[in-house]
Amino acid sequence: MATLTCANSRVLNSSLASRIMSADEAAALINFGTRIGMSGFTGSGYPKAVPLALARRISDANLRGQKAQVSIFTGASTGPELDGALAMAGGIQLRLPYQSDPETRKRINAGEMEYMDIHLGHVAQYVEYGFLGKMDWALIEVTAILEDGRLVPSSSVGNNRTWIDQAEKVILEVNAWQPSELEGMHDIYYGMQPPPYRQPIPLVHPGQRIGTPYLHLDPEKVAAVVLTDSPDRNSAFKAPDESSRRIAGHILEFLEWEVKSGRVPPSLLPLQSGVGNIANAVLLGLLEGKFENLTSYTEVIQDGMIELLRSGKLTCASATAFSLSPQMLAQVNAEMANFRDRIVLRPQEISNHSELIRRLGVIGMNGMIEADIYGNVNSTHVMGSRIQNGIGGSGDFARNGYLAIFMAPSTAQKGSISTIVPMVSHVDHTEHDVGVIVSEQGLADLRGLSPRQRAKLIIDRCSHPDYRSLLHDYQERAERLSFGKHTPHLLHESLSWHERYVRTGRMRPHDE
Amino acid sequence: MATLTCANSRVLNSSLASRIMSADEAAALINFGTRIGMSGFTGSGYPKAVPLALARRISDANLRGQKAQVSIFTGASTGPELDGALAMAGGIQLRLPYQSDPETRKRINAGEMEYMDIHLGHVAQYVEYGFLGKMDWALIEVTAILEDGRLVPSSSVGNNRTWIDQAEKVILEVNAWQPSELEGMHDIYYGMQPPPYRQPIPLVHPGQRIGTPYLHLDPEKVAAVVLTDSPDRNSAFKAPDESSRRIAGHILEFLEWEVKSGRVPPSLLPLQSGVGNIANAVLLGLLEGKFENLTSYTEVIQDGMIELLRSGKLTCASATAFSLSPQMLAQVNAEMANFRDRIVLRPQEISNHSELIRRLGVIGMNGMIEADIYGNVNSTHVMGSRIQNGIGGSGDFARNGYLAIFMAPSTAQKGSISTIVPMVSHVDHTEHDVGVIVSEQGLADLRGLSPRQRAKLIIDRCSHPDYRSLLHDYQERAERLSFGKHTPHLLHESLSWHERYVRTGRMRPHDE
Repeated sequence: MATLTCANSRVLNSSLASRIMSADEAAALINFGTRIGMSGFTGSGYPKAVPLALARRISDANLRGQKAQVSIFTGASTGPELDGALAMAGGIQLRLPYQSDPETRKRINAGEMEYMDIHLGHVAQYVEYGFLGKMDWALIEVTAILEDGRLVPSSSVGNNRTWIDQAEKVILEVNAWQPSELEGMHDIYYGMQPPPYRQPIPLVHPGQRIGTPYLHLDPEKVAAVVLTDSPDRNSAFKAPDESSRRIAGHILEFLEWEVKSGRVPPSLLPLQSGVGNIANAVLLGLLEGKFENLTSYTEVIQDGMIELLRSGKLTCASATAFSLSPQMLAQVNAEMANFRDRIVLRPQEISNHSELIRRLGVIGMNGMIEADIYGNVNSTHVMGSRIQNGIGGSGDFARNGYLAIFMAPSTAQKGSISTIVPMVSHVDHTEHDVGVIVSEQGLADLRGLSPRQRAKLIIDRCSHPDYRSLLHDYQERAERLSFGKHTPHLLHESLSWHERYVRTGRMRPHDE
Repeated sequence: MATLTCANSRVLNSSLASRIMSADEAAALINFGTRIGMSGFTGSGYPKAVPLALARRISDANLRGQKAQVSIFTGASTGPELDGALAMAGGIQLRLPYQSDPETRKRINAGEMEYMDIHLGHVAQYVEYGFLGKMDWALIEVTAILEDGRLVPSSSVGNNRTWIDQAEKVILEVNAWQPSELEGMHDIYYGMQPPPYRQPIPLVHPGQRIGTPYLHLDPEKVAAVVLTDSPDRNSAFKAPDESSRRIAGHILEFLEWEVKSGRVPPSLLPLQSGVGNIANAVLLGLLEGKFENLTSYTEVIQDGMIELLRSGKLTCASATAFSLSPQMLAQVNAEMANFRDRIVLRPQEISNHSELIRRLGVIGMNGMIEADIYGNVNSTHVMGSRIQNGIGGSGDFARNGYLAIFMAPSTAQKGSISTIVPMVSHVDHTEHDVGVIVSEQGLADLRGLSPRQRAKLIIDRCSHPDYRSLLHDYQERAERLSFGKHTPHLLHESLSWHERYVRTGRMRPHDE
């Protein structure tokens, strides 16, 4: 078998080529009850064969009445062949640090699966500190294995350096679908030490390279190499809707004002943007706008960012993953030489590192589920109890960046939910960390304001007209009747909108 | 007048000596409506004469029917001659970033004064970015003015570098009460640039000096020099009570376990501890414990830390302020030569800097008002609306340190308030940032746990027996009936304990 597959041009190291086996054979090596660090970030670069095979093994064991589970740690979200399949099999004991899979979400919210929602920039050190126990396995997708055993990373880096270094045994999936042109895009930093021996991270510019393009590993650790040829969970690009375009418009106008006021340089500061429709609308707005020499220090390279690089308006982009539409991916592969100097893919501990985010002065733009009138933001929980995805990197950027912008349409579910509420039902970003709130209605700049001043501004600028008078009414009564008047609240009412939604399917009272 | 007061050995620069005047004369220079950056951190090193004179001017203006106010920004809390006097006169328009004065608190909670509660480590850059507008005045207490015009800082550094650099005009209070032995204790770092020009901060050890012992200023900016001879708001040391000793015991046992498990070196990692009874109990516990070669990277040097330095168990302490009892202060002054190599006072942007806190791997230990069963912590608001003091530096340390420990007795107000509640009424530290919760009942190590797992542990380990069954009852019903079961909540009940307290004066139902 080894001789046969050595012909695969992606596994150039003969010792590792001798460990090529099928996904089922590799999955059979994994004991139940173990902790597995897997590659994968926003549906990019996750292993696609062994998790499926492992899910089959778990299903079989379950049928035999055996309790079979593993704990799954990744970079961020993955794809249906990983989260979907393992959740469906009931095979996940503890999942972290982020997920967006429908089946996983269902299991977590049914109380059938433990999920720990952790800042993406904290995962590597959390494991290295030993807070999660010993890592048994690393299961990592790579683009290729070089002759000397170094690895060409895949379409995401995530926590792969950490999983490989920390795990006792490693399984590699070599995915021929990943473009070989990825080689040279990555920058893996090997200078991290645990405290008290840490040194400054020498990065001072988003485009700077401080490491090596390859992942290193001890070949002795490699238990299996599995060959795959499967696409990432790439989805087609959707053009921004009206609401997203209006949110983007408010943000661009605000940034222009910041430049005019002398607070931000004309080329802005490094931009971070979450994933999705609104983020893409902001990027497209920048394409049409007048800012030049932009930089980006973010998590994910989306289509809009490639357009900005092409136009020359964006000079460089740093991230930990690609997340491109199939069409854009084909184009990027064809022009890779043009992009290799301007795109850097880093470990997520570096892309989301508080030291670097603060030093660079990153402007963070992230979506939210809801904000309250005092400027607290909920990014994770629907009605306070049901997890949507997770906090992702929003906290890494919001807390330590130059400015934290949170954005969402002012209503959801055809108007039955108001994004602006008296009190958020869960807090991911506190009043101390939220700088600007934007909806399609307008933008509230909260800097330098007390809670009561923030309330007036958020209601007037961001709330939907259908909810505005209800919010004013709450706020005015709270200012009169609250126990304390620093952050006025009527505690028997503050979560009543959410409670009403759970009971009736709409946040507004029925007599309205 | 100049020749006369030049004899004052604390003002050695003749040009600045010529600007010596009375506090009333200096206060008369300040226009109403201006923004004033003042020195002062936890009752140390705040200006003691001009704020009082300014409060008198404001009272007079108010009597004449004139609306007279100024905005007051400091390091942290100050004393009655500053916050107390100005609040009593109704003279504060906007106050930030922290306060603990009874009169100020009363005004804020009556809705008569705007207060913005901001991370202590963010204030300097917030002002330098221009987020709070132009700074008109810096009013700074110093120990002495050298011949060449450099300033020997006082018993706190706080944001003094920033206020002096950013303000248009400066008033100096030279306080002869401050020991001249303070000279050489401070380390003022002048290497900060705004983004995109920021470089790594070259600090890799708590005791390291990276700056100069003096504050620099442009003498042209100095509008007045006022001579004072007044003590800081130093309060006597109180011996820890039984509850604090038990909390300290749980923490020390936990730290020993961390060392035994190989997660933390035998000399631990740099310690940060908040101010107060429990923090002092932990420090005294360390004095009796077996850890050696400890270091501290914190905000305030308290009595307990001096004892630790004396014993040799603590090798160095970094902070931004002294906060010693009168008795300890006398002793420290007498032994200053012994301490000058082992104590460093820094600007609070450095003592609380996310880059450094993360690099050093600081273990943060902070008090709290309440925690909920899912591990969210409220540090600031009583019953969700009434501000107590402020978040202070707890967020700087909790978010970026090695581990965030929050501690409080399990009940307050003679048992009428439970510190562990179904849902906190305000969130300052999210579930993503809280590592360990401790009460006198026990310690809950939340690392690696899902919300439902955390709930069981927090209730069992930390809650008071009088509230434990109520909490279990809430949690069990929520697990059955909640909309989502990731973070189970019954929204019509989740804040009912607080609501009941506001209504009846106790959190427990009356039929209990």
